[in-house]
Amino acid sequence: MMGRLAVIGLGPGRDGLVTPEAAAALADAEALFGYQPYLDRVPPRPGQIRHASDNREEIARAQAALALAATGARVAMVSGGDPGVFAMAAAVCEAIEHGPAAWRTLPLTVHPGITAMLAVAARVGAPLGHDFCAISLSDNLKPWDLVARRLAAAAETGFVIALYNPASKARPDRLKDAFAIFAERLPPETPIVFGRAAGRADERIAIVPLADAADEVARADMATLVIVGSAETRLVPRDGLPPLVYAPRSSGRSVGIGT
Amino acid sequence: MMGRLAVIGLGPGRDGLVTPEAAAALADAEALFGYQPYLDRVPPRPGQIRHASDNREEIARAQAALALAATGARVAMVSGGDPGVFAMAAAVCEAIEHGPAAWRTLPLTVHPGITAMLAVAARVGAPLGHDFCAISLSDNLKPWDLVARRLAAAAETGFVIALYNPASKARPDRLKDAFAIFAERLPPETPIVFGRAAGRADERIAIVPLADAADEVARADMATLVIVGSAETRLVPRDGLPPLVYAPRSSGRSVGIGT
Repeated sequence: MMGRLAVIGLGPGRDGLVTPEAAAALADAEALFGYQPYLDRVPPRPGQIRHASDNREEIARAQAALALAATGARVAMVSGGDPGVFAMAAAVCEAIEHGPAAWRTLPLTVHPGITAMLAVAARVGAPLGHDFCAISLSDNLKPWDLVARRLAAAAETGFVIALYNPASKARPDRLKDAFAIFAERLPPETPIVFGRAAGRADERIAIVPLADAADEVARADMATLVIVGSAETRLVPRDGLPPLVYAPRSSGRSVGIGT
Repeated sequence: MMGRLAVIGLGPGRDGLVTPEAAAALADAEALFGYQPYLDRVPPRPGQIRHASDNREEIARAQAALALAATGARVAMVSGGDPGVFAMAAAVCEAIEHGPAAWRTLPLTVHPGITAMLAVAARVGAPLGHDFCAISLSDNLKPWDLVARRLAAAAETGFVIALYNPASKARPDRLKDAFAIFAERLPPETPIVFGRAAGRADERIAIVPLADAADEVARADMATLVIVGSAETRLVPRDGLPPLVYAPRSSGRSVGIGT
């Protein structure tokens, strides 16, 4: 029998945000691969084998999953958020490209999920409501000057910017460096959203103006998703409710409602 | 009793990609608002009232939904994909900002969904595997020269680019104009993905090099999502299966597997 590999997005971490197709693919798998905290989200099933690995071993994990699928097993690789956004799907494709020819005949299915920027955006309104970009601040896979050029270009041309992997022990100052780039290019009142564990019990959402972001920048960790507004991003105070943050659909000029 | 408004992402159009929370919010609503083709995806429920409106009347639709919620009703606004990505959540926030004070006290919940670029990306591998951006080519809400500057900046700094709303009768040449910008800045072999109705029965996915994209550009309609690779995007042929397209996690330099 031919094996297969499913790469599954678990979303931001609440069961109600796992798609039915992802849940069905998890249930169908004989073996699961993934980073331990993601495997921990999947309800145990009798007979289903689990292979946990460190978060830094993405290619080795992809290779192990493909090798097992090539023996005829139904294998699933779990990923937080969406597997195609700074997660396991690219590592699996990379392993297939450079692996044995047999891996290129294996059925591969990617099950999309709710990625962190969508989950955080939903909690505060619609901060991704106009053109936006997603940038990983992790620079163990790309040079910092390339990241810096992208950050500058995005801020200068009015993109909203979602930042993934903003901080780690190996590179504690990258988020601070990014905010120095924004401070030179965006108004001090630009709304910034810091979202950690969006939608989970330990959720923490903070909305601060760019000029006052230093404390939140210092507090951000790898589980934080940062949304940097554009000059057009609006902050709407509400009575008895948290403020709304949204990017107007109209952009680059003043457009009145109904005109 | 206090009314409320839920803004609900239906995903790309297959039931298995609607999150359980979105399904529960749909079932709970007394009244649904939305563009008719999105309302048609929601199973009928006795007693639930539906208000369909034209796709161009987003602010009027948001105002009508908020006005009904303010009378004490449980109201849902449905959106394709994710409501925060070129969809209804920003229009609802805009209506709240400019509407009566009472609307700012209404509980508002945004339920995220699988947006089109994630659905299309999942079908072909991992084309969004490194830094990427999402740009709407609709220019009835922003000037074209701003869109053109964003397209150029994104291509020049190596973002993968997801294009939403690529074509309409009112602006048939915008996608062609965009591809002229890409042709000056990206290698002719850059993989381009055209995805229409991803995951639905009438799905159509095409993968072509930038130099040969003219026919697909001419064929694209408003339901097409285009993913424009970067110079680093890889195309992996497979035996008996469609090719994989992915953006390597490492970027801006050559990095071997395992190094």
